[in-house]
Amino acid sequence: MSRIDGRTPEQLRPVSLERGWSKHAEGSVLVSFGDTKVFCTASVTEGVPRWRKGTGEGWVTAEYAMLPRSTNTRGDREAVRGKIGGRTHEISRLIGRSLRAVIDFKALGENTVVLDCDVLQADGGTRTAAVTGAYVALADAITWAQHKKIVKAGRKPLTGTVSAVSVGIVDSVPLLDLCYEEDVRAETDMNVVCTGDGRFVEVQGTAEAEPFARDELNALLDLAVTGCADLEAAQREALAHTL
Amino acid sequence: MSRIDGRTPEQLRPVSLERGWSKHAEGSVLVSFGDTKVFCTASVTEGVPRWRKGTGEGWVTAEYAMLPRSTNTRGDREAVRGKIGGRTHEISRLIGRSLRAVIDFKALGENTVVLDCDVLQADGGTRTAAVTGAYVALADAITWAQHKKIVKAGRKPLTGTVSAVSVGIVDSVPLLDLCYEEDVRAETDMNVVCTGDGRFVEVQGTAEAEPFARDELNALLDLAVTGCADLEAAQREALAHTL
Amino acid sequence: MSRIDGRTPEQLRPVSLERGWSKHAEGSVLVSFGDTKVFCTASVTEGVPRWRKGTGEGWVTAEYAMLPRSTNTRGDREAVRGKIGGRTHEISRLIGRSLRAVIDFKALGENTVVLDCDVLQADGGTRTAAVTGAYVALADAITWAQHKKIVKAGRKPLTGTVSAVSVGIVDSVPLLDLCYEEDVRAETDMNVVCTGDGRFVEVQGTAEAEPFARDELNALLDLAVTGCADLEAAQREALAHTL
Amino acid sequence: MSRIDGRTPEQLRPVSLERGWSKHAEGSVLVSFGDTKVFCTASVTEGVPRWRKGTGEGWVTAEYAMLPRSTNTRGDREAVRGKIGGRTHEISRLIGRSLRAVIDFKALGENTVVLDCDVLQADGGTRTAAVTGAYVALADAITWAQHKKIVKAGRKPLTGTVSAVSVGIVDSVPLLDLCYEEDVRAETDMNVVCTGDGRFVEVQGTAEAEPFARDELNALLDLAVTGCADLEAAQREALAHTL
Amino acid sequence: MSRIDGRTPEQLRPVSLERGWSKHAEGSVLVSFGDTKVFCTASVTEGVPRWRKGTGEGWVTAEYAMLPRSTNTRGDREAVRGKIGGRTHEISRLIGRSLRAVIDFKALGENTVVLDCDVLQADGGTRTAAVTGAYVALADAITWAQHKKIVKAGRKPLTGTVSAVSVGIVDSVPLLDLCYEEDVRAETDMNVVCTGDGRFVEVQGTAEAEPFARDELNALLDLAVTGCADLEAAQREALAHTL
Amino acid sequence: MSRIDGRTPEQLRPVSLERGWSKHAEGSVLVSFGDTKVFCTASVTEGVPRWRKGTGEGWVTAEYAMLPRSTNTRGDREAVRGKIGGRTHEISRLIGRSLRAVIDFKALGENTVVLDCDVLQADGGTRTAAVTGAYVALADAITWAQHKKIVKAGRKPLTGTVSAVSVGIVDSVPLLDLCYEEDVRAETDMNVVCTGDGRFVEVQGTAEAEPFARDELNALLDLAVTGCADLEAAQREALAHTL
Repeated sequence: MSRIDGRTPEQLRPVSLERGWSKHAEGSVLVSFGDTKVFCTASVTEGVPRWRKGTGEGWVTAEYAMLPRSTNTRGDREAVRGKIGGRTHEISRLIGRSLRAVIDFKALGENTVVLDCDVLQADGGTRTAAVTGAYVALADAITWAQHKKIVKAGRKPLTGTVSAVSVGIVDSVPLLDLCYEEDVRAETDMNVVCTGDGRFVEVQGTAEAEPFARDELNALLDLAVTGCADLEAAQREALAHTL
Repeated sequence: MSRIDGRTPEQLRPVSLERGWSKHAEGSVLVSFGDTKVFCTASVTEGVPRWRKGTGEGWVTAEYAMLPRSTNTRGDREAVRGKIGGRTHEISRLIGRSLRAVIDFKALGENTVVLDCDVLQADGGTRTAAVTGAYVALADAITWAQHKKIVKAGRKPLTGTVSAVSVGIVDSVPLLDLCYEEDVRAETDMNVVCTGDGRFVEVQGTAEAEPFARDELNALLDLAVTGCADLEAAQREALAHTL
Repeated sequence: MSRIDGRTPEQLRPVSLERGWSKHAEGSVLVSFGDTKVFCTASVTEGVPRWRKGTGEGWVTAEYAMLPRSTNTRGDREAVRGKIGGRTHEISRLIGRSLRAVIDFKALGENTVVLDCDVLQADGGTRTAAVTGAYVALADAITWAQHKKIVKAGRKPLTGTVSAVSVGIVDSVPLLDLCYEEDVRAETDMNVVCTGDGRFVEVQGTAEAEPFARDELNALLDLAVTGCADLEAAQREALAHTL
Repeated sequence: MSRIDGRTPEQLRPVSLERGWSKHAEGSVLVSFGDTKVFCTASVTEGVPRWRKGTGEGWVTAEYAMLPRSTNTRGDREAVRGKIGGRTHEISRLIGRSLRAVIDFKALGENTVVLDCDVLQADGGTRTAAVTGAYVALADAITWAQHKKIVKAGRKPLTGTVSAVSVGIVDSVPLLDLCYEEDVRAETDMNVVCTGDGRFVEVQGTAEAEPFARDELNALLDLAVTGCADLEAAQREALAHTL
Repeated sequence: MSRIDGRTPEQLRPVSLERGWSKHAEGSVLVSFGDTKVFCTASVTEGVPRWRKGTGEGWVTAEYAMLPRSTNTRGDREAVRGKIGGRTHEISRLIGRSLRAVIDFKALGENTVVLDCDVLQADGGTRTAAVTGAYVALADAITWAQHKKIVKAGRKPLTGTVSAVSVGIVDSVPLLDLCYEEDVRAETDMNVVCTGDGRFVEVQGTAEAEPFARDELNALLDLAVTGCADLEAAQREALAHTL
Repeated sequence: MSRIDGRTPEQLRPVSLERGWSKHAEGSVLVSFGDTKVFCTASVTEGVPRWRKGTGEGWVTAEYAMLPRSTNTRGDREAVRGKIGGRTHEISRLIGRSLRAVIDFKALGENTVVLDCDVLQADGGTRTAAVTGAYVALADAITWAQHKKIVKAGRKPLTGTVSAVSVGIVDSVPLLDLCYEEDVRAETDMNVVCTGDGRFVEVQGTAEAEPFARDELNALLDLAVTGCADLEAAQREALAHTL
């Protein structure tokens, strides 16, 4: 069986990670998972939020948003509505937690990195593209901070790599990296965040229609681990050259 | 090894589900998982939100909140701050999705049930207690709607049962139904929502410190499935008598 | 003439004041006036709001809210609407002023007590039940603070007792402690807050339909004073044993 | 004993009610109680709020606000803060209720009058000046609506007059119409709204320091009734000529 | 050709600048441009906003608002809506910038002046009346601050005068100081802020229908410069006597 | 004298207008003025806002925003702060007015076009780049609407072209198209919106430090007209091929 866009079930969409997309940010990446495009910037500031002062530890956080016309029909701006929706909150928190899983806060010192992930074009998997791209922006920002001596010499705040991918069951077939059209039809939808060594940072599976059985869950996890390994290779390749 | 409160790793806290706690609501339950107490009401209204009108299908949604002093130190009221936090949004959405997994919307007809889950006292597992208690309140509300002929004769909107439990790894030991003190110390924290037949509605696992391996994930899922089966028994027993 | 629920005009509904309803709060009470149930917690924190710092005086304040399904038809959450309504503000302020009337701020020292009064079930008189219950929670919180030496030895921050009751004229008859159904039909509605020695802290009377004459006002005040004396007895009795 | 400004205890400050202060509004008054100046406009619109449609009855409501520098030190604008404070809500509701007490909604027909009371300069008693001035603006607006045939011929929506005054106990002496300096020093503060026939629409008494006794309450009510009678005379005189 | 109100094209409406309209504010003016009436107060506080601390320089800012019934049909209060509209923001910023153009911040020292411009009655040109009136209130506030030694002896924070006027093209004729009816019909609408020496602080021209040509722009600027000179004369006259 | 980036005073930065940047929007452009990059999408919806219904006329509006790290230091998201700032409002309104100046609303029919202009990278002149780019996105959206018969056959909603440029005086020299560093140092700053035939839609000049004289204003206008002619050529060229 071939998918809408001709992929095999266990195939990612074309992934691209363009570094240096902003002249202002300490790290920046335009990440594409097929037609899904997310602009990720990493902003370093010295100092930490009040509740963390004096601990000697840094902080990493993230904000996710969609441009109003990143989707097929225009959505209202959350700034205009005056409040952030639940989905936006949820994804921002997921990205933050995912990146914090590979940070040594002591090594970062009392510095903060904010990841902004703005979806320019959405075609399914925006949150997983955001995690994957934000990791690369974060890596660049930390390299910058090391050069600027904001991070102390010899300290390695980054303890590993992290990437994310969606998996789902469509017409009873487990698929990797769903595009929007597949996502809408999925019976089960799961977002998985893995470290480079194949362990899990987040597993979020939701039955959209029918509850899913343990063996379906297992099949999805297998697919996700493979997909994250491919994404980690793409991250490594993107980061291979000096900016 | 015994736990803080003397339980074995695979043991739930004492669970109670007191029905009929509100004279106004169509369904209401005070659910306790140990010292965690959540007041769940189910409100039935005829009609559905605008985007669902004319479909012949109903809707079920949920709102979760914590009373300011449900926790050890008083938290600000979200109404006073003027906005709902990300965590509140996230949990409200989780409860709504979990209950919708066991609803036949056609059978419900164009009626809406709102589940309000207000935490009176928190000691870990408030969201899982909320799902478990809200199911019972929902069941009572649907029975009420059947008696009132709001749901048409012969229709069965409830297609199964649903309950939820937290699991986590503390000091390398997988534990069922974490209390607050355990939750704080957990390396990995997972909330699992199951139907009565042991399938999954939601699986949300988060590495709090170290990423978790596949076998840890499996051990946690095993525990959760057992816990949900026990909770389902408690729900069945609570619903056994007519109010 | 007997009332809807069989009471005489000058009779309170059954009053109960259950202390120790929260394991977290320094003082807590579930107060019932008939079917009206309000959960009151008193939270003690060292320190005072900025405008009071350095005065050597403490502060007592209150927040009132209704759970969405505490009423016959579900109301929107104020947190969801993003703002607190006028009625909520008004009652929160009333409760705070009422309790401050029996506090010696110098004796309290630079400590703050926040009373949260959340209506679990409403059947008229929620604000008067809240004042009456909050007093008991406040008393327990102050005892706690004395034991913890947060209040200095020998200091007595509580200078008296305070309770509140509603009165109103229904079908030309002055009635004590209106239930919801009576409240809706009342021509005049008054809330009276008294100290234990029969003096007034607040008198808030409103003509719902016709303006009221001086002798009607006098009859209502007579009733209220009697009702508050009964409530004060209930408070005394509730506080008679050590928690 | 003479007061700060030389008045006797039972004497109002100079009262002025200038009609026709706006060329746009259907009724408008600049009311002064001494240095307290409130600009009141009455806006008539055909139609009523949704919840009142089809009842054949009209509606009257009010909004109160203070200009930022109406007080001795500048206050933040509520529009800038993004929310209306409790005190503003409370007073807006009081003014609305007070005016509705003298309206026959059937005679008004399905029309709405909004009273805007904006404090230009505050020196105590802004809410009582607002009620007193708003009544005159309302009377002019209703006359206008009668001329325009928005109110049907022969209908008299205004069933009486209404005015308001503050009373308080300062240094144990009951005083009428407190200025700001007296208000700050008052042990007890009461706002009383009366109709022209000496009956009560609202009685709101608050102990600022010590609770007050029944005879103090009586003395304050006596003063207030006298004051309102004087205000009613001023209203009658202001309305005596055609605009 | 004569205008709606009989003026010649280059004629201002009657201008009045009544000083001392508030007993609380350090400077206050009721400014009228015909039927447009704006109440301007200047509030002096010692200290500056955080971002300016330690610079030795002061700050001047402005807030503009319209009373709900200042216009022909009642507008909603921005405080009730919970947010400030774009037009209000824009005008507040314009007034602030205009006044800052004639302030020597070093001479002002670390003090802040806030100008509140509240429109009591609107008939076109509210922003230009606000700038013109606010200048006079500011001048009085600075004189006050000099007397109080808040501004150091010998310092002159005010470096010039500033006034504003609207100009527009109606039926192809350039007109000075448009009233509302003219403003609605204008093809081009321009607000010009000038200093007393005929130079420009702000030029804001907008084509309402057709774009405008360079010679039309020139004609409008000529008119505006004349108008501002007349307004400056009115300001000088108003400030001629000591309050 | 040469400028920071080597340009002559009357030279634009390199301008690029990349069409078709979004697969979802009816028109989309990535516009660059040097390092300033704005992503403009045009969204067509059938129907108009309520206040325009039944007029047979369409509507065009715009929303402008900056990504948080589009600037040198990260700014807070307006959605997180819960309100839109004055500057954002002002620019959104400017863009909307500018585009409406070249629209024949009757020809557009009862359809709405929303222009979203999101700044990806800011280096001065974001609002003028936004107007210039949004025009091209609008043109594409209207072509799309003509093909889809949403705009009736033979109707030409676009009546001309519009572009915008900033001009300013730096070190007494009038410069075209200021980059951020020049903008900060400018004594006078002006944004000018012109139609393709050299007439003005908006002229917004602000003295940042010293007021500016008439001849300076004239020199700036001369520069702006030249710049807009160049921008119009770039727009024409960008639109020359069919997408």
